[in-house]
Amino acid sequence: MTRLLVTGLMLMWFMVGPWVSHIQAAADREKLLTEPGVYGTFTVFAFNEEWAKQDPATRIVRLTSLKGVVEQHREHVVIDLYLLRGLSDQADLLFRIHAKELRETQEFLLDLKSSQFGKHLKMVGVMHGLTKKPNYVPGFPAQMKDDLNTISEPGQKPYAIVIPIRKSAEWWGLDQEKRAAMMQEHTAATLPYVKTVKRKLYHSSGLDDLDFIAYFETSKLEDFHSLVLSLEKVQEFRYTRRFGHPTILGTMKSLDEVVELLAQ
Amino acid sequence: MTRLLVTGLMLMWFMVGPWVSHIQAAADREKLLTEPGVYGTFTVFAFNEEWAKQDPATRIVRLTSLKGVVEQHREHVVIDLYLLRGLSDQADLLFRIHAKELRETQEFLLDLKSSQFGKHLKMVGVMHGLTKKPNYVPGFPAQMKDDLNTISEPGQKPYAIVIPIRKSAEWWGLDQEKRAAMMQEHTAATLPYVKTVKRKLYHSSGLDDLDFIAYFETSKLEDFHSLVLSLEKVQEFRYTRRFGHPTILGTMKSLDEVVELLAQ
Amino acid sequence: MTRLLVTGLMLMWFMVGPWVSHIQAAADREKLLTEPGVYGTFTVFAFNEEWAKQDPATRIVRLTSLKGVVEQHREHVVIDLYLLRGLSDQADLLFRIHAKELRETQEFLLDLKSSQFGKHLKMVGVMHGLTKKPNYVPGFPAQMKDDLNTISEPGQKPYAIVIPIRKSAEWWGLDQEKRAAMMQEHTAATLPYVKTVKRKLYHSSGLDDLDFIAYFETSKLEDFHSLVLSLEKVQEFRYTRRFGHPTILGTMKSLDEVVELLAQ
Amino acid sequence: MTRLLVTGLMLMWFMVGPWVSHIQAAADREKLLTEPGVYGTFTVFAFNEEWAKQDPATRIVRLTSLKGVVEQHREHVVIDLYLLRGLSDQADLLFRIHAKELRETQEFLLDLKSSQFGKHLKMVGVMHGLTKKPNYVPGFPAQMKDDLNTISEPGQKPYAIVIPIRKSAEWWGLDQEKRAAMMQEHTAATLPYVKTVKRKLYHSSGLDDLDFIAYFETSKLEDFHSLVLSLEKVQEFRYTRRFGHPTILGTMKSLDEVVELLAQ
Amino acid sequence: MTRLLVTGLMLMWFMVGPWVSHIQAAADREKLLTEPGVYGTFTVFAFNEEWAKQDPATRIVRLTSLKGVVEQHREHVVIDLYLLRGLSDQADLLFRIHAKELRETQEFLLDLKSSQFGKHLKMVGVMHGLTKKPNYVPGFPAQMKDDLNTISEPGQKPYAIVIPIRKSAEWWGLDQEKRAAMMQEHTAATLPYVKTVKRKLYHSSGLDDLDFIAYFETSKLEDFHSLVLSLEKVQEFRYTRRFGHPTILGTMKSLDEVVELLAQ
Repeated sequence: MTRLLVTGLMLMWFMVGPWVSHIQAAADREKLLTEPGVYGTFTVFAFNEEWAKQDPATRIVRLTSLKGVVEQHREHVVIDLYLLRGLSDQADLLFRIHAKELRETQEFLLDLKSSQFGKHLKMVGVMHGLTKKPNYVPGFPAQMKDDLNTISEPGQKPYAIVIPIRKSAEWWGLDQEKRAAMMQEHTAATLPYVKTVKRKLYHSSGLDDLDFIAYFETSKLEDFHSLVLSLEKVQEFRYTRRFGHPTILGTMKSLDEVVELLAQ
Repeated sequence: MTRLLVTGLMLMWFMVGPWVSHIQAAADREKLLTEPGVYGTFTVFAFNEEWAKQDPATRIVRLTSLKGVVEQHREHVVIDLYLLRGLSDQADLLFRIHAKELRETQEFLLDLKSSQFGKHLKMVGVMHGLTKKPNYVPGFPAQMKDDLNTISEPGQKPYAIVIPIRKSAEWWGLDQEKRAAMMQEHTAATLPYVKTVKRKLYHSSGLDDLDFIAYFETSKLEDFHSLVLSLEKVQEFRYTRRFGHPTILGTMKSLDEVVELLAQ
Repeated sequence: MTRLLVTGLMLMWFMVGPWVSHIQAAADREKLLTEPGVYGTFTVFAFNEEWAKQDPATRIVRLTSLKGVVEQHREHVVIDLYLLRGLSDQADLLFRIHAKELRETQEFLLDLKSSQFGKHLKMVGVMHGLTKKPNYVPGFPAQMKDDLNTISEPGQKPYAIVIPIRKSAEWWGLDQEKRAAMMQEHTAATLPYVKTVKRKLYHSSGLDDLDFIAYFETSKLEDFHSLVLSLEKVQEFRYTRRFGHPTILGTMKSLDEVVELLAQ
Repeated sequence: MTRLLVTGLMLMWFMVGPWVSHIQAAADREKLLTEPGVYGTFTVFAFNEEWAKQDPATRIVRLTSLKGVVEQHREHVVIDLYLLRGLSDQADLLFRIHAKELRETQEFLLDLKSSQFGKHLKMVGVMHGLTKKPNYVPGFPAQMKDDLNTISEPGQKPYAIVIPIRKSAEWWGLDQEKRAAMMQEHTAATLPYVKTVKRKLYHSSGLDDLDFIAYFETSKLEDFHSLVLSLEKVQEFRYTRRFGHPTILGTMKSLDEVVELLAQ
Repeated sequence: MTRLLVTGLMLMWFMVGPWVSHIQAAADREKLLTEPGVYGTFTVFAFNEEWAKQDPATRIVRLTSLKGVVEQHREHVVIDLYLLRGLSDQADLLFRIHAKELRETQEFLLDLKSSQFGKHLKMVGVMHGLTKKPNYVPGFPAQMKDDLNTISEPGQKPYAIVIPIRKSAEWWGLDQEKRAAMMQEHTAATLPYVKTVKRKLYHSSGLDDLDFIAYFETSKLEDFHSLVLSLEKVQEFRYTRRFGHPTILGTMKSLDEVVELLAQ
């Protein structure tokens, strides 16, 4: 019954879409997602109790403000969206935000919070990390370096997992050589999954109560599970004081998909 | 006084029931519950404060939406329901959902949350695991394998218990042989209870802050208690970093029983 | 000013009382409180914010529904009530429920929650345990067995304390003999308080995140304090991983006393 | 603008004051604060959201009910008040209550909660302890005993600090002699601060998840900080499993000062 | 559309500004920020749900009350403001308050809480520390002392980070010499960042559940990250029991900037 109304409003939405989308290309997505020296922020949001009480028309108006804020900041930040609802505890949405400066990320989040849509969001958690050149890879054998460069299988990787990590004081107290040897064992354990599980590492010490944020994308969750199980078995894992808590599991969605799903 | 009204509405409910129930058989329940490579999700819900304020007629309307969502997803997911209220902390309902892909589970939970019934639910917690072929059983003595195949006593097993488990880094650092020996001792301790306590194991590493989810069904809680006590005494238990927290204890209910109980 | 109204309503209450009280004797209180194989459930409740806003007349109506639910289940469960307000954190009432089957306890708690009174209750926590024949006592010296049978001083014991206990994996890994020796030292430490502090033990492994629930009654809190201090000094205490958290301290009240206190 | 109204109402307040104050002397404050065998309860309260929305006149009416409850129980309990707001996490007021029996403390807290003022209070935490004769002092050298009897500097000590303490199982497993030696070192560390920092110790084992509640009064917070720093350096501190969590810091206020401050 | 109104009201704001600002200079900011024996309080606030529902005009009126309270207390306390929203968990604002006496800080926070603006603030956390003369620096080599006196790079340092620290009992049990040697290694690790990362240390033992509050300012977050990483690698870090939890990350803002940002 309200489906017709929703369809009509969705139509309006997609008509408004193209008008703003030409600003979209401003920030160099590829560069921000691959270069070192970029800040990655993971913010987990839950809806407040009032969101569920809004009628579809109001929701779409509010979701339009989300789209507006995202467009407005596309020049400085790259934003990825994940649907956590149903898969992660007391959380509905994850924003992954890349920026050259955390100030720009804060400005986006301030505007998001002030928007009509943001009024319904409670920030459940936020984590920051920095991309850096690999620490240990330069010393790895040539074959391992090659294997790490294997191109991952093409096609969508719908699942994303974020795992915060804190190492023990003992880990940091080891000399670089010992850590490098253990990281080589760690890396060897990941090689069988290079094709099906994409990884990205953020360094967090000082920016958060963490040392690292490990980010994964996959279409084969079972492979991801096997990968983690392998990582639990290497010596380096004994120097891990926190792994997860929370483990954030969700599905990647485009902004338009999120809007469509949340409008219902 | 309102009992008559409830009875009338319940009647309506059961009349609506059969009309939708023929879709019910779509997903192969038996296969999803016994095969490896299936994802099991345990979601614990509590009612919000407003649920208690609804009159019985409204509740039944809302519960009908629950039935609708369950039917709608029966093609892809297998859903079991447990009543936790009174037996577990700040929780009312547990859904156990089996699916070939976690995306399908998420789609069910999204629709559940958007339904008239879902608006009253707060998700207290969610855990995911994967069914796998037994790791250690192939190496067990023949007699033990036979004993494990003992058919459990027929009849209803009203109690269900879910125990999340995390092993220590030391456990995963042991070689497969040592772990196998300890798992044999562990398994021997469970044999006296094979008939009265049904067990099912889900592997969680990476999908959650856990390594395993242990699921139990029994009609004799005292036997289940004795089983856990036996498991606490074997060597493998010293490598367990988390056992429970929470321990989820409830009673198995059919969808219709849940509807009847919650309508009151 | 409203005191007169309250008195009138209280009168009504006591007039309704006797009419239902003849069902009260159904469950054999003595047997359920002394035999092994009985489940003891401890549920801690806090009032929601709306309770304090009800006028005395409404409260009494609601409290009458509490009395109704208690009577209705007296056939299957034995219920004891404790006032926690002021003595325990964020808690107002404790129900101790004994039953042959946890299902019966759940049925009582479901009806309690659905009642007019239950709508004001938030379940803060719940713990389950099972009564069992003593594990170690049979091997104790005859004198110690005699001492344990000392009849406790007659008269009311207004204070009740509930202490959840979890032992370490090391404890369960010890052989029965070593544990028995330590439990004998433990028991010797309790003997000076046999007369003034009543104890009852529930076994919880698997039913909850605990191994034991220790329940105490006393009129001399100072003796109870000395008892716990003595128990902290024996060797067995080093194998205790959790003791309290929470410690629940309250005063025992009859249903009528609770009603009178809460009506004000 | 509303200041005039507040002044008028405050005047009314002080006019009502003397009429009730002659009951005040009933409980022997001096005895309850110095003798062993007295229960000390520390209850931390925060205001609910509605308190801030009350107009000054309503607040004063409510505060009058606080004064009434305090007067009504002065025969059995000695009450001290501390303002925590701004200095301690999510807390506004601390009541320290001394009584011969915890039942009397509970009766006061029940009446406080039922009062017009109490409806705005959420109990954030409660801790109980018992005063006892010194354990180790009798064995200390004569000079140390003398030093401990140094009269503290006269004048107001506006700051009060409450620190809950739990010792490790290892501590209680040491023999009395070893503990006495360490407590002598501990006491020596406190001597430089005897004049400026008043201390009082409550024994909690069994009454709470604590072994001790340490209570301090001072006008020189810097001295108190130096005292704690000294105590962290003695051997006995290694046997402390919990120190603070929370540390409660506030300023001592008379009932009239609290009323005046909260009326605004 | 409401932007015009906001601009008008902002204008009013800045017109009112100068009239009160001449009181501002009363407390000697420079002295309070550099001398020993000064108390530093860090209070983290989050807005309540109602703040987001206020229209811009009402917000500006409320923010004016914030400005009023700050001015009113400028004689006794020095106040710095930081915007946490978007960068720290469930927090919006941080106040850093310096005062000769914590009572003065409490008086400011009481007035802040009572103000029209304060009614929208929930205090998420508060930490207190004391500035002291350096403990270990006097024994450092002359070159290191010189290096520590390097003037930091001029220009704004927009980022501020606050890290609460608790040392282990083992740390305090070490003799002064051993601690001094380790602090020299610690200090050496910080030297490469003296120019770009400003540090300030507060001593907390007894005032809070902490031993230290470390406060940092920088315009180069990457340098700050490298600094923390270096500190994790020195021996002294193994004696750190708590580092962060929470790590508070925000951007420094003047009162006028905060007002402008929050008015929107």
